[in-house]
Amino acid sequence: MLVEIINIGDELLIGQVINTNAAWMAEQLNLSGFTVLRFTVISDSREQILEALHEAEKRAEIVLISGGIGPTKDDITKTTLCAFFNTHLVFNEDAYRDIQIFFALRGHQVTDLNRKQADLPERCFTLPNKLGTARGMWFEKKRTTEGKTVFVSMPGVPFEMKEMMINEVIPRLQKSFSTPYIYHKTVLTQGIGESFLATRIEAWENSLPKNIKLAYLPQPGMVRLRLTGTADDEQKLRHQVDSAIAELEPIISEYIFGYDEETLEEIIGRLLREKGNSLATAESCTGGYIAHLITSIPGSSDYFKGSIVAYSNEIKENLLFVSPEILAKFGAVSEETVEEMAVSAQTQFNADYIIATSGIAGPSGGTTEKPVGTTWIAIAAQEEVFARKFLFGDSRDRNIRRTALQALAMLRKKLLE
Amino acid sequence: MLVEIINIGDELLIGQVINTNAAWMAEQLNLSGFTVLRFTVISDSREQILEALHEAEKRAEIVLISGGIGPTKDDITKTTLCAFFNTHLVFNEDAYRDIQIFFALRGHQVTDLNRKQADLPERCFTLPNKLGTARGMWFEKKRTTEGKTVFVSMPGVPFEMKEMMINEVIPRLQKSFSTPYIYHKTVLTQGIGESFLATRIEAWENSLPKNIKLAYLPQPGMVRLRLTGTADDEQKLRHQVDSAIAELEPIISEYIFGYDEETLEEIIGRLLREKGNSLATAESCTGGYIAHLITSIPGSSDYFKGSIVAYSNEIKENLLFVSPEILAKFGAVSEETVEEMAVSAQTQFNADYIIATSGIAGPSGGTTEKPVGTTWIAIAAQEEVFARKFLFGDSRDRNIRRTALQALAMLRKKLLE
Repeated sequence: MLVEIINIGDELLIGQVINTNAAWMAEQLNLSGFTVLRFTVISDSREQILEALHEAEKRAEIVLISGGIGPTKDDITKTTLCAFFNTHLVFNEDAYRDIQIFFALRGHQVTDLNRKQADLPERCFTLPNKLGTARGMWFEKKRTTEGKTVFVSMPGVPFEMKEMMINEVIPRLQKSFSTPYIYHKTVLTQGIGESFLATRIEAWENSLPKNIKLAYLPQPGMVRLRLTGTADDEQKLRHQVDSAIAELEPIISEYIFGYDEETLEEIIGRLLREKGNSLATAESCTGGYIAHLITSIPGSSDYFKGSIVAYSNEIKENLLFVSPEILAKFGAVSEETVEEMAVSAQTQFNADYIIATSGIAGPSGGTTEKPVGTTWIAIAAQEEVFARKFLFGDSRDRNIRRTALQALAMLRKKLLE
Repeated sequence: MLVEIINIGDELLIGQVINTNAAWMAEQLNLSGFTVLRFTVISDSREQILEALHEAEKRAEIVLISGGIGPTKDDITKTTLCAFFNTHLVFNEDAYRDIQIFFALRGHQVTDLNRKQADLPERCFTLPNKLGTARGMWFEKKRTTEGKTVFVSMPGVPFEMKEMMINEVIPRLQKSFSTPYIYHKTVLTQGIGESFLATRIEAWENSLPKNIKLAYLPQPGMVRLRLTGTADDEQKLRHQVDSAIAELEPIISEYIFGYDEETLEEIIGRLLREKGNSLATAESCTGGYIAHLITSIPGSSDYFKGSIVAYSNEIKENLLFVSPEILAKFGAVSEETVEEMAVSAQTQFNADYIIATSGIAGPSGGTTEKPVGTTWIAIAAQEEVFARKFLFGDSRDRNIRRTALQALAMLRKKLLE
């Protein structure tokens, strides 16, 4: 089943916004057994949209479109689709009711501009938008040869598009087209770089059956290993992929922290909840980022007590009671300081576990002895406190991210002891 | 001068790698007065490359291609270009010398695979690659009507492509084509949704000169308004765009927080630095995210003292000294609590300004009286403290993001008083 993706938006073509929609859509489609043939990015121009639709129709059975269906003047996708499918806009009661509810929940009146979003092409099936006011539009067109081409128009706003893809578009495409059975499993690793990982698992990788493909998906601080199997027999395929993973696990056990879509902050949350334990953080170089990751998980107030972000020595002394002597003798970025931060936070928050961080995130602040990227992480766990030193890179963003992931990974191991 | 960009690579089409090349190329081209008409992403397939070249040739004067010119088997762009331009590969002495030097500098021998990179199409002008071994290729082809189309093939590796674009491709394109002058300016707004903004500025938008285009670029918590002007006279155009913005400002002054690529956390940092003032935060529902945004800015330790994240009533009492009576009477999500948090943090951090937040981020925890999304934000500024209530939506991630942006926007206004 060949798919083409058309992304519409002037902001993409002048390079102001990077087109992340196409890659995300393609990944989801691949996971569901569809093959993406082409991405096309065009501007909010009637002629260009029409031309792209005509071209895509010749090559693909499925054409997915995002962008240009907002309420403003520059959004002309909807009227252009009417021209292409030889139909016209009609007022859609259901869509209008959804728009009214959307604004009522937010305490707003519906403007004329928003009301127009309920004007939708007559010859299409509309898809609800749980997170916005622009409905999706599903068109079908007979091919000149045989069969049909499906066209789906979605919002360009990434979170609205994603919700619609997952809940509406992909399930409907799977009903409309038959696809081979595909089974994915992703192994999540932390603390080892892509090339070292590749060397370590080379023999295992070479022994994989032909119908199982391996992809390395590196991100700052972690590498995901995705296995994708294709076959006609679901049971057999699942067994095959699971066996391959069972063989992989002992080779890199110290780096694996989870599977599939899990995040370290979710895993930490689950473990703390199971044990009935609580957590707090004392952060310097991570500046609240670890607390942010932990509190991004719904329900985290059940186990997370809070954080003290101590961004200066003064605050490390006054709020975390690190002794001035230790700061003077060993510096803020030291085993001694980070362990004192952890122990003090444990008392203040009355928490079972503490993560403490202190490092030089950069770009400035490095010395020969402690270059940018030097980072200490401490974990306090009941009666015990321990710290480890790391030397990350020279990018501030990535140092913050890597410190946070490394700290969560250390806590996870402690929680599993 | 119309440009099309073709990016070649299987890794793009399965969503494994996000196509950042096209956006970067487009931005550079725009700044140099070229208009990009379309991006096309295709796989490493001979037929698809030929089809994309034939199509692009009909529409554009300039076709820029990246990807598929590495030394490995799946890189077939070079031989496909030979087919398209009816030429063949010949061994290029200059290119081979560059490859030898490249490897000698890195202490490596030239392999057979690398030697083949010196085989280049006979009918093209080659462009040096300072950072890699794959040369760029510049082809010209007569158009059936009049004039010529320029095709340039570049590496897909982003840093190699960027070096070649800046030093070779753009200077040569500017010599070959005369370009109009283009001027962009982006107005950043916060605290008003896209459709309300559109209604409010409708009359202004309708009065814009024809050579100035307006685009709405919404993100969670903010909307960017981008004006793009095109003209032959640089001075006149800049004046025209700046005048349009001067007319816009009084209409939405309370929502504008900056221009172009600035962020609220950068602006806050600049203002605090200029005034020699310090900042700390006392966060509940934002869980450290505001501290994280502020500390993502290099040098923020000069003005940011830290944060207390108080994720439970117990911590609000023990570390932020909110009185149990206030928590019992008004609840954690109340004007009284958030103001007490702010005032207490001001003393503890000895900071000039404090941001305090308390809200129901969701998805659970809402009541009829205080539904999910209910949020109080307080600012303490020297002798003064004030708070405002907001009702955001039902998405946890976006509530955290919107609360943070709203809090930073409130602080910015206070700093400008």
